[in-house]
Amino acid sequence: MNCILLPVENVSSGVAHITALTQISHVQTVLNAAVGDTLKIGQLGGNLGTAVIDSMTAECIQLINVKLDMCPPAKLDLTVVLALPRPKVLRRLIMDMTALGVRDIILVNSYRTQKSYWQSPMLERLDEFVLEGLQQGIDTIAPTITLEKRFKPFVEDKLASWIKGSAIAAHPYGAQSFSQFLRQQPSLGLPSLVCIGAEGGWIDYEIALLAAQHCDAVHIGPRILRTEAAVNAILGQWLL
Amino acid sequence: MNCILLPVENVSSGVAHITALTQISHVQTVLNAAVGDTLKIGQLGGNLGTAVIDSMTAECIQLINVKLDMCPPAKLDLTVVLALPRPKVLRRLIMDMTALGVRDIILVNSYRTQKSYWQSPMLERLDEFVLEGLQQGIDTIAPTITLEKRFKPFVEDKLASWIKGSAIAAHPYGAQSFSQFLRQQPSLGLPSLVCIGAEGGWIDYEIALLAAQHCDAVHIGPRILRTEAAVNAILGQWLL
Repeated sequence: MNCILLPVENVSSGVAHITALTQISHVQTVLNAAVGDTLKIGQLGGNLGTAVIDSMTAECIQLINVKLDMCPPAKLDLTVVLALPRPKVLRRLIMDMTALGVRDIILVNSYRTQKSYWQSPMLERLDEFVLEGLQQGIDTIAPTITLEKRFKPFVEDKLASWIKGSAIAAHPYGAQSFSQFLRQQPSLGLPSLVCIGAEGGWIDYEIALLAAQHCDAVHIGPRILRTEAAVNAILGQWLL
Repeated sequence: MNCILLPVENVSSGVAHITALTQISHVQTVLNAAVGDTLKIGQLGGNLGTAVIDSMTAECIQLINVKLDMCPPAKLDLTVVLALPRPKVLRRLIMDMTALGVRDIILVNSYRTQKSYWQSPMLERLDEFVLEGLQQGIDTIAPTITLEKRFKPFVEDKLASWIKGSAIAAHPYGAQSFSQFLRQQPSLGLPSLVCIGAEGGWIDYEIALLAAQHCDAVHIGPRILRTEAAVNAILGQWLL
């Protein structure tokens, strides 16, 4: 938690209140902060800044001298289409994509997504994971998250409307590498949409449907990475 | 587990045996493989290839038609100096760096590394995490792992001997970005050594000691990533 994000209703005219217990616990036990200390805070959907602890109980921390004068960092011009992963890794993936600044996240079904994943209670907690990611990455603007439970209708009817520039699908058996793809169309820059499979990746049928929508299969070398590692390794290109 | 790596003594003249219980369990319950099926295997420190299941019990899988005719992928020309992280994330970090193909890993003390981390039983299990990483990344050659419990003597007396080209220290408050660093010395290409802090990063004193050894502080933008995400986002540059 590199900043503490507060909902709009907790901030007004120079005073703010931290009422979420996870945030209070973080201030008290991780930061070991005391009355008079300055905290890095932000307003969800608004600016970043600082505030000073005025009083502190187990239920509420009152902040004064609230200054929210810094814009959040720019979002990446990027949509990530991610095959719904195992619930266990969903939290970290949503956190990481949020912290990296992905603007739009689409969780889509895939052949290798088990049906039970769509019933996971973790899917009810996406806002919580986004908040964690924003507080990690020091941002205030949540990405959009869209759930698409049917792969083929999504790809055939909706995918094109999400693609603003070029698009790729990460695929260990893609004919070209990501760098070859970038060199072939240097004027386009980085793609605006990236499809990343869950463990086991996309099957050929899915890759063919994506290719029909001008979403080219690219690989990042012979090594197969965990989904989490692959997402960060690929999206790291947008940070340079 | 994208391939099953066997120790040298388990492979001889066309026949091999899987005797590790985690591997047997993977073959039987994840791959659902049966007698006659072909498996992707490798020999630790040797080649990759395939073999056919000849017989299978709960204690041993016998493989025949063992063909080990593929070289493992090239290692990255890269040494990662990583501040010893929380034991909980050590496993995934070692796995990911191994799967990415890092040649040398140095786990070093840092101001923000808690002393207790050096007593963690996880440090006894590094070989196990390396094996997981190799089986994930489809490689057979383990990275070297060196433990350096004293930061200053390591940096002042040993670091220079590890640097073959240029070197960087990832630091959110570095004066230049990673891409600026690369543009300033295009002939050198990617650095041969990267220092990455644990949660909270390096302190200024550490950055100054590293800089004195020509290890330049670079940032990757205003967003702060989890150590795991940062390692993958930074090392992803080597995959392009």
